[in-house]
Amino acid sequence: MALIVQKFGGTSVANAERIQNVARIITDTYRAGNSVVAVLSAQGDTTDDLIAKAMEINPRASKREMDMLLSTGEQISCALCAMAIEAMGFPVVSLTGWQAGMKTNKAYGSARIKSIDTERIVSELGRNAIVLVTGFQGLNKYEDITTLGRGGSDTSAVALAAALKADLCQIYTDVEGVYTADPRRVSGARKLDEITYDEMLELASLGAQVLHNRSVEMAKKYQVKLEVLSSFAKKPGTKVKEVVKKMEKTYVVGVAKDKDIGRLALVELEDRPGIAYKVFSLLSKENINVDIILQSIGRGDTKDISFTVKRGDLEAARQILEEHQESIGFDHIDVSSNLAKVSIVGAGMIDNPGVASQMFEAIYGARINIQMISTSEIKVSVLLDEEDADKAVAAIHKSFFGE
Amino acid sequence: MALIVQKFGGTSVANAERIQNVARIITDTYRAGNSVVAVLSAQGDTTDDLIAKAMEINPRASKREMDMLLSTGEQISCALCAMAIEAMGFPVVSLTGWQAGMKTNKAYGSARIKSIDTERIVSELGRNAIVLVTGFQGLNKYEDITTLGRGGSDTSAVALAAALKADLCQIYTDVEGVYTADPRRVSGARKLDEITYDEMLELASLGAQVLHNRSVEMAKKYQVKLEVLSSFAKKPGTKVKEVVKKMEKTYVVGVAKDKDIGRLALVELEDRPGIAYKVFSLLSKENINVDIILQSIGRGDTKDISFTVKRGDLEAARQILEEHQESIGFDHIDVSSNLAKVSIVGAGMIDNPGVASQMFEAIYGARINIQMISTSEIKVSVLLDEEDADKAVAAIHKSFFGE
Repeated sequence: MALIVQKFGGTSVANAERIQNVARIITDTYRAGNSVVAVLSAQGDTTDDLIAKAMEINPRASKREMDMLLSTGEQISCALCAMAIEAMGFPVVSLTGWQAGMKTNKAYGSARIKSIDTERIVSELGRNAIVLVTGFQGLNKYEDITTLGRGGSDTSAVALAAALKADLCQIYTDVEGVYTADPRRVSGARKLDEITYDEMLELASLGAQVLHNRSVEMAKKYQVKLEVLSSFAKKPGTKVKEVVKKMEKTYVVGVAKDKDIGRLALVELEDRPGIAYKVFSLLSKENINVDIILQSIGRGDTKDISFTVKRGDLEAARQILEEHQESIGFDHIDVSSNLAKVSIVGAGMIDNPGVASQMFEAIYGARINIQMISTSEIKVSVLLDEEDADKAVAAIHKSFFGE
Repeated sequence: MALIVQKFGGTSVANAERIQNVARIITDTYRAGNSVVAVLSAQGDTTDDLIAKAMEINPRASKREMDMLLSTGEQISCALCAMAIEAMGFPVVSLTGWQAGMKTNKAYGSARIKSIDTERIVSELGRNAIVLVTGFQGLNKYEDITTLGRGGSDTSAVALAAALKADLCQIYTDVEGVYTADPRRVSGARKLDEITYDEMLELASLGAQVLHNRSVEMAKKYQVKLEVLSSFAKKPGTKVKEVVKKMEKTYVVGVAKDKDIGRLALVELEDRPGIAYKVFSLLSKENINVDIILQSIGRGDTKDISFTVKRGDLEAARQILEEHQESIGFDHIDVSSNLAKVSIVGAGMIDNPGVASQMFEAIYGARINIQMISTSEIKVSVLLDEEDADKAVAAIHKSFFGE
């Protein structure tokens, strides 16, 4: 008998029919002889309604009261799902974040889980009940309700799986698993059976949007075995773990595209020590994250530095740098917002130097110009014109995975 | 500086505009130099939506999960009202039942408040915050959320006022106070400035529906000064307290009508000792409450017993008695469901025997037949044909209060 934590997102519990479906998945797992703890998100329309009500009354409401308001969403979906399971004749209990012992820091709206007091859950499992827990929320030291912010319910599930030493944490979503590329855009995109935590982290940060990075980081830290699968299709999904069996010669697990990219170039920068430090410390003080950095070799006494930021940070980055034009010492700033980043990810890459050149060859074959290149141990990213990105993904995917 | 507990019902918080209005009432009280604890009900449509969602999934859901579901309603209205008060620039905090220390017994769906741990509220008041508390709910010894059932939010407010030793508990509703008769039906119905707890109890149980009996009983027990007033009109309401100054010669405070009445008569009952005990213990075992009982003087070896029950209990009462026809020993049962009870209430009545006969005279003057009569220290009730009830109320009201 195994202990399985299952997580169901907002689309999986969107209406009565889908809640019945979730109840079936949970009770099937229970009837197979497992203990089940299920973490549920709020119904999508509930959250939208609550936010609309708040905006009507006070668009600048405190985060504390927003948490008080929004945390009702998961309580509603958990209670409804418990009712569905009761109707099927199984013992079940729904628990709020605080009843489930989820303790967070005090950051309303974006709290982090500090610890989980599992006493209540363990006691409910001990009397053979199915336990439903509200995702996305906990209690801080003031005994106030907090919410965990983006990706919160995934994180709740992984944290519970870690605290309960669960055998498996299943993340049910509206896709069937992790794919070699976005299946809506790339024909021939294949579902992966397995993927490592590190690969999943790179794919998640590259916009694959299957699992939130926070939850994958936590799963890696506590070695929680994850499985991403669909609540609508009865199929095995993708397992995420520390080490996976690689198919022969498959070093790349996926191709991803990220359009949320803006590029700045400081042109004719004075070539003196400490100048890069000056530029990037100014941006970091403004909480602007820099992704790819490319520094040209000096020409005479000047050089150029190009770097990418999130598109929403582009204007703020330009302003802060222009304010310091004199002290930094550059001729002008070149800004570009119509670029995209395309990346390949794979844990075996570092031992296979041919992988990067195979990617460049595929891009060259599609007659696409590369603007910047960045590499890490398990990924290679290139910056391209946004209009070429889909073509590049398709060409790269075909080169590594065939049609 | 006084401590005032205010309670706002579902219609008072029905939408954004009304929540703003409630926020104004609360902050006006606060700006006048008072400490304020406000108890809020759920928005009416929220509760309706939640019940509809539950019914769709499981019409026989457990009371525990229904409480888990429905308790979100007050949490939503409290958070929204807190946001409205924040927008007005006042310090405020919303608290759930468990955060406010409301401890109940374990009866899901109809819990009773056992104690209130006021530490959190007192500490929030200490930092000059306005405190909003979810009505209708608490926490039982299993750390599960419970709801208090009908009249729960009134009871929450009175219990908080008692525990905090508040100077006043204001119950804001959609009527302007307690009237001498239903103002929608009786022209000339007058608002009372003051009324005693006992009079209020009789009026409430007679269907005046301004305050729930449970909350009035608790107010009487802990001597909490109540005021019933409208959240829509800026006018003083009706004060409810132990002793009130009576206007000269006014012994009657109100005339009430209750249509939720059914009458059974056991005809030709054997006249032997213990027969009344047998009849009413059978009904009490089935949780059927009996209101007015009338026993005829025996004729030879038989007598008749008539009594009233709530209309919804009529059929169950008939069945249980027919099942025991032989052992009780009666000829047949006569059932009537088209009756109404009309009552006058007033604490001075017992010392003024003329009051009852003035009521009977008014009914006689309207040519209405009285079927049963029942009296207590502070009320006289008569049973009439339902179609005559409004005419009787008008005639009685005119006799005691004028046009």
